[in-house]
Amino acid sequence: MSTTFSYQQLFSFSKNIFIKIGCSEADADTAARSLLSADLRGVDSHGVARLSGYIRLWEVERVNAKPAIRIVHESPSTAVVDGDRGLGLVVAPFAMQVAINKAKQAGTGWVSVKNSNHFGIAGHHAMMALENDMIGMAMTNASALVAPTFSKERMLGTNPIAVAIPAGDQPSFVADFATTTAANGKLEILQRKNQPMPLGWALNKEGESSTDPSAIKNGGLLLPLGGDKEHGSHKGYALGAIADIFSGILSGANYGPWVPPFPAYLPMPADMPGEGIGHFFGAMRIDAFRTSAEFKDHMDKWISRFRSAQTIPGQEKVLIPGDPEREMEAERIQNGILLLSPVVDDLKGLATKFNIEFPC
Amino acid sequence: MSTTFSYQQLFSFSKNIFIKIGCSEADADTAARSLLSADLRGVDSHGVARLSGYIRLWEVERVNAKPAIRIVHESPSTAVVDGDRGLGLVVAPFAMQVAINKAKQAGTGWVSVKNSNHFGIAGHHAMMALENDMIGMAMTNASALVAPTFSKERMLGTNPIAVAIPAGDQPSFVADFATTTAANGKLEILQRKNQPMPLGWALNKEGESSTDPSAIKNGGLLLPLGGDKEHGSHKGYALGAIADIFSGILSGANYGPWVPPFPAYLPMPADMPGEGIGHFFGAMRIDAFRTSAEFKDHMDKWISRFRSAQTIPGQEKVLIPGDPEREMEAERIQNGILLLSPVVDDLKGLATKFNIEFPC
Repeated sequence: MSTTFSYQQLFSFSKNIFIKIGCSEADADTAARSLLSADLRGVDSHGVARLSGYIRLWEVERVNAKPAIRIVHESPSTAVVDGDRGLGLVVAPFAMQVAINKAKQAGTGWVSVKNSNHFGIAGHHAMMALENDMIGMAMTNASALVAPTFSKERMLGTNPIAVAIPAGDQPSFVADFATTTAANGKLEILQRKNQPMPLGWALNKEGESSTDPSAIKNGGLLLPLGGDKEHGSHKGYALGAIADIFSGILSGANYGPWVPPFPAYLPMPADMPGEGIGHFFGAMRIDAFRTSAEFKDHMDKWISRFRSAQTIPGQEKVLIPGDPEREMEAERIQNGILLLSPVVDDLKGLATKFNIEFPC
Repeated sequence: MSTTFSYQQLFSFSKNIFIKIGCSEADADTAARSLLSADLRGVDSHGVARLSGYIRLWEVERVNAKPAIRIVHESPSTAVVDGDRGLGLVVAPFAMQVAINKAKQAGTGWVSVKNSNHFGIAGHHAMMALENDMIGMAMTNASALVAPTFSKERMLGTNPIAVAIPAGDQPSFVADFATTTAANGKLEILQRKNQPMPLGWALNKEGESSTDPSAIKNGGLLLPLGGDKEHGSHKGYALGAIADIFSGILSGANYGPWVPPFPAYLPMPADMPGEGIGHFFGAMRIDAFRTSAEFKDHMDKWISRFRSAQTIPGQEKVLIPGDPEREMEAERIQNGILLLSPVVDDLKGLATKFNIEFPC
């Protein structure tokens, strides 16, 4: 049981919900756009399926619908932004715009954010740089679910890193990935299908290798990109740590095992050393290095050459980062977004709660 | 058969060799320091074992011993440096210093480099930022040896990324890793021991999974961090691609399959689109975000907490990136650097060629 909705239907509904909790028209628009970008790009776990989760954070007063988001420290190419407990979906575009504005003046802009909440998908924010002929970067920390190499303790979030690079005739290069071997969403799919999980994705709560896709639900741990030491998991651990430090420690947010959880019913960590969750954004103006025309010509050459690389048996083509998400977006703009029935029920519940139509 | 030498012996010898090929006193000092940092930190494949390789590049006129390294484009927080075919061991510290100087003024500095050669280990250059209370970054491209996900063609180098972050009472956080599952040097160790290679490290030249550690020597391919698609190799591929684009395309160097090889006897790629190999450096002043004292207090807390995380059975402690290299450095400064006899013979050959003593 699932139902297809148009982008516009889900966008309008989400925007209306954000207005109902007290967001300004502009903020509700920004938040809905951030949220829905996940559905469009095929990251279903981070889109409208999470709308009710954000609303529950507002209900327990962990999200401020009318934040005074502001710069609290800056230099010509840097800033720290205080998100004032706003929706990360709104705080992140604000901070990325600060990075872009800094880059216009200083060549690059780098913004660390504290006192925020979950920001949706990193790639959406990084891609704001593209239309400005800039390279964009976005990363965030998140509540702990990942074991550092040799550990069986949840110490890091899935801490994604996104990098968006403009090209000329070719579509942009957009990498956006969790610093773990696999995303939690993939485990949930295997649970539903009752299939085993590949080794190298997760440990059970005793810290042993597991093929049970319920491992995380039962107190286990996701593994850093690489999986085990022999396959370079210390590198994935380092990447997740870098995202954590840039997002949490440069800004004054929480970090490591102290990052607050997304589910509103979970208790907050004890003795939190910072404010909210943290993000980090970067923008680099292409022509602060060389002319945009030259750069894009070479990006086109890079992309064409990689796309035409010889493939291994059974594979049709080599992909460029961002290809699958861009194709999904075109398809879903055209044909709509399929939501599973629990998600539809969730949205109907919100409609009832706030006394609005769904779809609207 | 192996022999132990003191750091000072190997440093003086390397410096003398660089002077013999025409480097200035200052450049020879810088080059020897860059080169030997690899031996100190335990990355034996990138230290004096490569000295004769750099000299052969000079012999075929691919290395210019008297380069006019210069900034060819800049903005308040960025620069492009032309290495004038100098030793990467000298070009890289020059460019990293430009990044640091930019950061002093603008908060951050970002430098892309063209027309360079191999620069030794990335971590050494990134760590220059630490004494300036800055976060340092260094990356480079390198000649193609790595297959993008789904490909059986050598398209990317092992393209390492290093990030160095200062702490207070705790030692600095220093991540420095190739964007592949395993380094080529690890395959060579297994070859010597006649042991099989773990799956996920490399493909044979037909693009099939291989456990033969001679796979690369016989035309095979290293795999990006993650190993296969199921374990996230598209993420390692994206990381290697980002290092390639930042190093090669932002600067005007070569990139992808066109990066020139380190061995001087190998032919240069046809139709190269840029100049030499490329690097990318970054420096971020801590107090462009928050006070250095606050930042370091929280870094100490981060490091202490991670170091005391619960371990999996059979492991004694959780490591912080940079721990093994720092311990190795302390040990080798104290007890000297053990060189295998082929390396000693190689250095003796250089001593004869340039008519100097070894050790000296």
